[in-house]
Amino acid sequence: MDFPKERFSEWFDEVLEKAGILDKRYPIKGMNVWLPYGWGIMRNIDNLFREVFTRHGHKEVYFPLLIPEDQFRKEAEHIKGFGGEVYWVTHGGMEELDVKLVLRPTSETAMYPMFALWIRSHADLPFRIFQIVDVFRYETKMTRPLLRVRQIHFFEAHTAHEDYEDAERQIEEDIEIWKEIARKLALPYVLNRRPEWDKFAGAEYSIAADTIMPNGRALQVATMHEYGKNFSVPYEIKYLKEDGTHEHVCQTTFGMSERLVGAIIGVHGDERGMKLPPEIAPIQVVVVPIPSKKKEEVMREAKVIEEELSAAGIRAHADLRDKYTPGYKFYDWELRGVPLRVEIGPRDMEKGGVVLVRRDTGEKEFVERDVYIERIRALLSEIQEAMLRSAEEEMRSKILVTDDIAALREHAGWGKVHWCGRQECAERIKEETEKQVLGTPIGEMGTKGRCIICGEETEIQAYVAKTY
Amino acid sequence: MDFPKERFSEWFDEVLEKAGILDKRYPIKGMNVWLPYGWGIMRNIDNLFREVFTRHGHKEVYFPLLIPEDQFRKEAEHIKGFGGEVYWVTHGGMEELDVKLVLRPTSETAMYPMFALWIRSHADLPFRIFQIVDVFRYETKMTRPLLRVRQIHFFEAHTAHEDYEDAERQIEEDIEIWKEIARKLALPYVLNRRPEWDKFAGAEYSIAADTIMPNGRALQVATMHEYGKNFSVPYEIKYLKEDGTHEHVCQTTFGMSERLVGAIIGVHGDERGMKLPPEIAPIQVVVVPIPSKKKEEVMREAKVIEEELSAAGIRAHADLRDKYTPGYKFYDWELRGVPLRVEIGPRDMEKGGVVLVRRDTGEKEFVERDVYIERIRALLSEIQEAMLRSAEEEMRSKILVTDDIAALREHAGWGKVHWCGRQECAERIKEETEKQVLGTPIGEMGTKGRCIICGEETEIQAYVAKTY
Repeated sequence: MDFPKERFSEWFDEVLEKAGILDKRYPIKGMNVWLPYGWGIMRNIDNLFREVFTRHGHKEVYFPLLIPEDQFRKEAEHIKGFGGEVYWVTHGGMEELDVKLVLRPTSETAMYPMFALWIRSHADLPFRIFQIVDVFRYETKMTRPLLRVRQIHFFEAHTAHEDYEDAERQIEEDIEIWKEIARKLALPYVLNRRPEWDKFAGAEYSIAADTIMPNGRALQVATMHEYGKNFSVPYEIKYLKEDGTHEHVCQTTFGMSERLVGAIIGVHGDERGMKLPPEIAPIQVVVVPIPSKKKEEVMREAKVIEEELSAAGIRAHADLRDKYTPGYKFYDWELRGVPLRVEIGPRDMEKGGVVLVRRDTGEKEFVERDVYIERIRALLSEIQEAMLRSAEEEMRSKILVTDDIAALREHAGWGKVHWCGRQECAERIKEETEKQVLGTPIGEMGTKGRCIICGEETEIQAYVAKTY
Repeated sequence: MDFPKERFSEWFDEVLEKAGILDKRYPIKGMNVWLPYGWGIMRNIDNLFREVFTRHGHKEVYFPLLIPEDQFRKEAEHIKGFGGEVYWVTHGGMEELDVKLVLRPTSETAMYPMFALWIRSHADLPFRIFQIVDVFRYETKMTRPLLRVRQIHFFEAHTAHEDYEDAERQIEEDIEIWKEIARKLALPYVLNRRPEWDKFAGAEYSIAADTIMPNGRALQVATMHEYGKNFSVPYEIKYLKEDGTHEHVCQTTFGMSERLVGAIIGVHGDERGMKLPPEIAPIQVVVVPIPSKKKEEVMREAKVIEEELSAAGIRAHADLRDKYTPGYKFYDWELRGVPLRVEIGPRDMEKGGVVLVRRDTGEKEFVERDVYIERIRALLSEIQEAMLRSAEEEMRSKILVTDDIAALREHAGWGKVHWCGRQECAERIKEETEKQVLGTPIGEMGTKGRCIICGEETEIQAYVAKTY
């Protein structure tokens, strides 16, 4: 499996198949079957979401999938943004339904009528919930597993606040939450405030985390939206203030999806296949017996090591399959991205230790059995850090800082360019380079310069990229 | 909240609302919003399913929600059984779809075309997977939260085997799996092999676990189906045998749903509200401070106790809400069914201990701080056992063994009657008593007697009950 960056798409499809992430052969375009290993990664990420958001005061709920048409149509911008790409349920059994139902493309319009019932007074605020569900979009563009699909495994947090200021504090906290999650996923990213014309349908503004894939394209992996009162007015979500008057709440949302699995596979992939960050790897350590002789003892010992590691809270798996050689097993688990391999053979047993092999660097070491668990723990945390560092370097190396449109056109990765902030200049960039303005970077100081298109003085240095 | 058994329905609705299980006000009939506490119970049960089935060799997958019409219609009996009660997706965006899509009512017809791709040879068998998803039924009967809904939170295991014998072994293992799950849910049940006319659409036969609700009605809470080759022939799921020929697999399934939450609430409920088995309670121990004086110290100590219990792996919550009295908190957590309460006041602190109060019996005891964690652990396991025992007794007390049709008609619970096995006699029982034959009990020895209707000699003693 070679990994030339221009053939990234083929490599990606091949890895998804060989590593058992998804099966694309399900007979509906853009809807795939999650296989056990892939679903294991997704579930670990879901549980990471749960842990972090619960710690930050959110409660988990679970809303129905279907939304009645009248309820769906209440917020004008939102329906403009989503109306053309939803699936419609029109019949139940043989009967035509009185009210058509939408498969949720996102849950604002399902949730907010309930918010209007739940939120009564300032004592109920801030109000913070999340859910992990599937959402559905009738994509007309070409679909790609994990990256652009019609059934999307989705995380969405929704909050309500007394005023705009408190909603803004939530967005700041969301950014901190995202940083924590990105670290656990070992994902480098840039935060961009999307241009007006590219914000979420119904939002005041949208902030997105974008990461860079091996082919240089930008992949949006998380979004935070400030809604202000755009939804609370049509859905009549009001609270009683301490002074006895009623006020509409201000709202925010935070969204992430299965794209994160695609991002991890893409960002960390190499010619041997996937590399998974230890924090979310379904198997953190694979134990491969090398039974050159004393087969039974070696197999038994491999199983003992699996049990010792599991008892220590490490996700371990001993590969005791009889029909494969150790060499095949190395290849197989490297492809599947298991961060650390333990090799155990008769000589290691005599010497009272095991061999550890890192997936990220290939480094090997012999370690005594009486300290091997601590060593593994330390190595897993080193691998986690090293993967993030190396992905960050890789990302930086793909970004060309330039104000020369020809250089930008030729560059395969992202550009970082001066931009005046106007839509017509962004459109010109797109026409000339096929790259689009990702927005205004958050938390980065720009230098003064002149817009790459119109030459106007500006302090905005925007990232521009082809996108998924 | 009184709990006369004839008012069970009202009590049930009231508990769901007050305990924060579900919100029924979502604007689609039979589709409800899971609230954080209710969803916490459901998630604990899901995780129990995961743990048990994974240990029994099943792997978790996740299939798309939608099924193309042609694929759905392949097995004739199945479509006869489900065709009238599915939701149809007919449009994507503004376009009419070329192939209509069904919201899965269950996943046989989604999964089995993929099984045909995945299963190649005898080495792939037995093949065992499960998934936890939502299924959809366009119910025309009256809906009831958790018990009869249109969006159902569902567990389904699917297996494939070399021959009928091995499939039968799976059903036997399923029964053992069910016993283990029922013990953790503290649910009493009877296993019934459903009559021919009441089996799953497409099955050779169906076995169901039925429990009894306070109003005497039977609630089906788990089903195991033997499919034989009924699906593998139309879906062409074949494997290569060792002798080089091809053979269709034999299949089974195992299903459970959110009904289990309804069963637990119903079976264990009392006039104070819910009682949750410790194994699946979101909060196993609630800590209530009694700050008659020294408020700050008592509050702090309650928090310390929560932390100590959490560190010991016990799901604990300290209720530090300022605006409620201890008495109100007792009431609130009893309603929500928390198995054990820790009370801590200034006098307890002086005496170096805490007071423990059981939800199931109301028993109180004082326990020293240096042994309180072990004592709580022991009590939680005692409560788990005691809840199952008392529910089993309650179930037995509601079953009238009789062959007298008038007595059966009058009895509010189940009957256990002699039945010849013929459909016409089962129908007569239904006409005369409104109770239906649940099937042939599994693992129970019948005594000889005469059919309650036709008087024919028989060894079948069947349970008969009004059902949900």
